[in-house]
Amino acid sequence: MTNSIYSDYPPQINSAQKEFLVRTVKDWTAQHGLVIRPSPAFISKESDPRGVTVTSAPVTLFPSPFPKACFEEAKALQTVYNKLYAAITCNEKWIGDIMEDLIDVDDFISHLWKVHLAVKEEGYTQTLSLGLYRSDYMAHVPSDDTAPSLKQVEFNTISSSFGGLSSLVTSLHSELLDSPPGHPIAYPSHPLLDSNRPPENTSVETLSAGLATAHTAYGPSKSSPALPTCILFLVQEGERNVFDQLALSRQLTTTYKIPVFRLLSSEIFDHTFIPSSNPSRPLLYRPPHAESTSFEVTTVYLRCFYTPTDYRSERDWEARTHLERSAAIKCPTVLNQLAGSKIVQQVLAEEKGTDHLASFLADTNPAILARLRETFAPQYDLSVNSRGRELALNPITAANHVLKPQREGGGNNVYKEAIPEFLQSLPETEWKRWILMELIQPPAEAKNVALRPDGEVLSGHVIGELGVYGTILWDQAEGKVLQNEQGGWLMRTKAKDVDEGGVATGFSSLDSIILY
Amino acid sequence: MTNSIYSDYPPQINSAQKEFLVRTVKDWTAQHGLVIRPSPAFISKESDPRGVTVTSAPVTLFPSPFPKACFEEAKALQTVYNKLYAAITCNEKWIGDIMEDLIDVDDFISHLWKVHLAVKEEGYTQTLSLGLYRSDYMAHVPSDDTAPSLKQVEFNTISSSFGGLSSLVTSLHSELLDSPPGHPIAYPSHPLLDSNRPPENTSVETLSAGLATAHTAYGPSKSSPALPTCILFLVQEGERNVFDQLALSRQLTTTYKIPVFRLLSSEIFDHTFIPSSNPSRPLLYRPPHAESTSFEVTTVYLRCFYTPTDYRSERDWEARTHLERSAAIKCPTVLNQLAGSKIVQQVLAEEKGTDHLASFLADTNPAILARLRETFAPQYDLSVNSRGRELALNPITAANHVLKPQREGGGNNVYKEAIPEFLQSLPETEWKRWILMELIQPPAEAKNVALRPDGEVLSGHVIGELGVYGTILWDQAEGKVLQNEQGGWLMRTKAKDVDEGGVATGFSSLDSIILY
Repeated sequence: MTNSIYSDYPPQINSAQKEFLVRTVKDWTAQHGLVIRPSPAFISKESDPRGVTVTSAPVTLFPSPFPKACFEEAKALQTVYNKLYAAITCNEKWIGDIMEDLIDVDDFISHLWKVHLAVKEEGYTQTLSLGLYRSDYMAHVPSDDTAPSLKQVEFNTISSSFGGLSSLVTSLHSELLDSPPGHPIAYPSHPLLDSNRPPENTSVETLSAGLATAHTAYGPSKSSPALPTCILFLVQEGERNVFDQLALSRQLTTTYKIPVFRLLSSEIFDHTFIPSSNPSRPLLYRPPHAESTSFEVTTVYLRCFYTPTDYRSERDWEARTHLERSAAIKCPTVLNQLAGSKIVQQVLAEEKGTDHLASFLADTNPAILARLRETFAPQYDLSVNSRGRELALNPITAANHVLKPQREGGGNNVYKEAIPEFLQSLPETEWKRWILMELIQPPAEAKNVALRPDGEVLSGHVIGELGVYGTILWDQAEGKVLQNEQGGWLMRTKAKDVDEGGVATGFSSLDSIILY
Repeated sequence: MTNSIYSDYPPQINSAQKEFLVRTVKDWTAQHGLVIRPSPAFISKESDPRGVTVTSAPVTLFPSPFPKACFEEAKALQTVYNKLYAAITCNEKWIGDIMEDLIDVDDFISHLWKVHLAVKEEGYTQTLSLGLYRSDYMAHVPSDDTAPSLKQVEFNTISSSFGGLSSLVTSLHSELLDSPPGHPIAYPSHPLLDSNRPPENTSVETLSAGLATAHTAYGPSKSSPALPTCILFLVQEGERNVFDQLALSRQLTTTYKIPVFRLLSSEIFDHTFIPSSNPSRPLLYRPPHAESTSFEVTTVYLRCFYTPTDYRSERDWEARTHLERSAAIKCPTVLNQLAGSKIVQQVLAEEKGTDHLASFLADTNPAILARLRETFAPQYDLSVNSRGRELALNPITAANHVLKPQREGGGNNVYKEAIPEFLQSLPETEWKRWILMELIQPPAEAKNVALRPDGEVLSGHVIGELGVYGTILWDQAEGKVLQNEQGGWLMRTKAKDVDEGGVATGFSSLDSIILY
C-alpha cells in the first residue's frame, strides 16, 4: 500500500526536463541565499583564496512524499517533547546519575559534566534556559500492509541546524509546483504533485522568535551604566553552513530590531569578558571593529561546542565555562546539552523499571505520554543477561538492529548481521560502550533526484528524515515554563547506501514534503 | 566647496573595521542574491564544470556622495527623456536620414536599419513599443567654486542593465548604516553617514511594472484556440549577470503572476515560431521541457542583440528579424534601439541648426526643454570648418575633450592632448567616424573601497556614474503614449584610471548614494 505511493515517484523526466529543472534550481538557490560555502575539495583555497564564492546547498529536485498522519503527530508532540527535555534538564540529580556511569567511557560527556559542576559550585547566576530543538524522525513501514508510524531517530538540544535553509527549500519546491503561474509545467504531471503543496514551513520565524523571547526575558542591562544588549551567535571556524545561521540573525535584526553579533568559539576570550566587580556576571561583548562600544549579551546561541572536535584544548573548555557562569541565557546550557545525549534517549526508551516519562511529565495526560512513547524505537543496553545482549548476539534478531556507540560524536555504527561477530571481537568489558537499537524501516521504494553542491545531479533510492523544530524558555530554578512553541520542519533525504555500507558514498540533501 | 565634501570621505577604517565590513558584505551579497556567475579567469571551467558557483557582484563598501540637486534633476527629467526617445522612434524618416549617412561607417547600424526596412516592407503587425531606459549621468564640477551640474553620459534604449541588482546595493548600504539596530557601529562615525540614508530605490518595481504593462496592453491571445500568454527574456549565452535579470522575472512572477521564460538568442528558431496561417503573426514559444504546451509571447525583452558581437552569423540577424515582424511587443524595437545610438545623442546636442528637442517635444514647456538641454555635454562632428574640428586640432582646447568612435560597440576613446596627433595620423576621410565630446569633470577627490568578485578589496580615487531608470509604452502608429514612468536608479563607481589610461586596470562596482 505505502510502497505503491513511492514506486512511481518522482515522475520520470527526459533530458530537456532535467536540464530545465537543474538550471532553474541552480539559479533559484543562488538568487535566494539557499547556499553554502563550497568545500575545499570542490573549490580549492588556491582558486578562491579570499573565500568569496558560494554554491548551491544540496537540494532535491522534487519534494518527497511523507505520511500526513506521521507529520501531524510529530507536530502535535513537539511541545510535549520540549517540556520533557526542559524537565530532564531541571533534574540535575537524574542527569548526574547517568553521567557518572559514563565518565570512564566518554571524555566529552565527562568534560561537559565537569563544566556544570564547576559553575554549580560557584553558583549559577542565570536561571533562565533556552532550548532551540529539533526532533528527528523517520516514517517506519515494517511491512507494506501496516500504516506508517513515526519513529524518533534523535532529539537535538544543541545547534539544531538547517532551520534557516529548510523553509527556503519549501519555497523552492512550492514555486516549482506553481511555475509558471496559471500554467504549471516545471514538473511533469503526477498525481502526487498536481494538487498537493508542501505544508507551511515557519522554521525561521519559530527559531528566531525563540531567541527574541529569551532576549526580552533577560530584562534590562545588569551593568552600570546600562549597556545596549545583544544576542551572540557563537560559531565554528570555517563554518560552511553560514547562510543557515544568517537567516536567523537577519530575522532577529529586521523583525525584532535586536543587535546580533557572530563570534568564533576560538575568539571568546578575545572579545568577551565578565567584569569581576559585578556579582551579576553580565557577559560583555566588545566588537573588534568598534572597541569603544560594549554590548551586554542577553543570549548566547551556540552553533559550536556540540561535538568533541570543537574543543581543541583546555582553553576551549575554559571558554565554555566562561559562557556558562555568565548571566547570559544559554541556548543551551551544559545540562540541557547533556540531556540531549544518546544515553538519555536510551534510558527514556527503556521498557522496564521506572516510568521516566510519567515522572518528568506528571501533569501530562497519560494518553499523550503513550503517544510519545510510541515514537521511541526500542533500544537497549548490553548488560549481562539483558534483553539487549540476547537480541544482539542472535544473528536472526540482530538482523533487525543497529549497534551504536554511546560516545557522542563517536565512530561508525554496526549494522544487522555484522553485530554478533563485532561484539564477539571485543572484550565484554567494552560492551557497555554500545547501545542496540531496533532498525527503523523507512519506505523501501522512496526515490528522488538531488543537485549536489558541486553541480552533480544524482538520483536513486533514498531515506527521508523529518525534523520538527520547537523552542522552549524555562526557569531552571522553579521549573517554570515561560514559553513553549512548535513551528517549522526539515526534510533531509539521504542516499540509501549511506546507512548500509557504513561509508557515505551518497548524498544527504535538503528536501521538502508533500503529504499523503 | 564640492571637493571638501569628498576629501575626507569615506572615513578611514582600521584593519579590524575593514575585515568586519568585507566579511559582512561578502555574506550579505550571497544571502540576498547580489551575485554574479564567476568569470572563468577567477573560477575556471575545470574547477566548476557544471557552473553552480556564484560570487559577490562587485560592490563598494560605502555609499558614494552625490549632489542632491543633480539627483532630483535627473529624476525630474526622466519622463521627459522617455517621451523624447519615444518621439524620435516614431519619426522613422528623421532616424533614416541619420542612419543613411552611417551605412558605410558602421556595419552594425546598417544591419539594424535593414532589419527595420525589411519588416516595414512586409508591414509591422504590432504598433505598441516598450522602452525600458536608463539615462546615465555624471555630476560635473569644472571648478571647486561652481555648483555641480548634471551631465548626460549616454542614454540606453536596449538591455538597460543592473536594475535588478542596484536596489539590492541600496539595501546593503542602508542596512550597514543602521547596523546593528539602535546602535549603528558597522561604519565609523562620519558627518555624511551619521544622518544620511540612500534614497529609495524602486528599480525592480519600476522595470517590472513596465514589462507587466506591456503584457497587459498586448490584450488577449491572437491564436485560435487561444493560448496562455507569457513574457520572453532573450539572453546571451554564458551571461554572468543572470541574477540581475532574474530579479525582474521573479517580480513579474510573484507580483503579477505572469509566466516568464528565458531563451538564448541562439535558440530563437529552435523554440519560437510564427504560424504562417495567422496574419496577426503571434510569436509562439514552445518550452523545450514541456513541448506539448505552447505560449503566446506578449512581450520580448531583449537582454542580448545590443552589441555587434551578439550577431555571429546571418542567422542571428534573421532571428532578430523574426522577432521584429512578430506580434509580440518588442522591448525595444529596432527603431528604438537605433534611436539610442551615439550619433543620435550627438545630433540632439548640436547647438546650431534645427532645434530637434523643440520639434520632438512640441507640447513640452520650453523651460523644461532648456533643463534637458543643460544635461547635454557639448559634442561635435568633425566636418570641414566645423567648431568640432577646430577644438580637436588645437592642443589647448583638445585637452578638455574626448574623441569617441561613432561606431556602436567600437574601439577605445582617445583622450585630451592625444587627440590632435591621433587625428593627424588618420586620413581626413576617416574623421567623420569620430565624435568630439567635451569632458565631464566629476569630483576630483571622490574615493571609495570596493569588494571585487574575486574577493580582492581595492580602494582609491573613483568616478561615479548615476543611472536613472524609466519606462514608456507607446503606440508607434499614433505616437500616443500609454504609460510613462520614472523610478529607481543605479550608481556605478569606477576606478579613475579606467578613463585615463585607456586600459581598464581598475574596477567598476555597483554602488549607492547619499545625497548632499
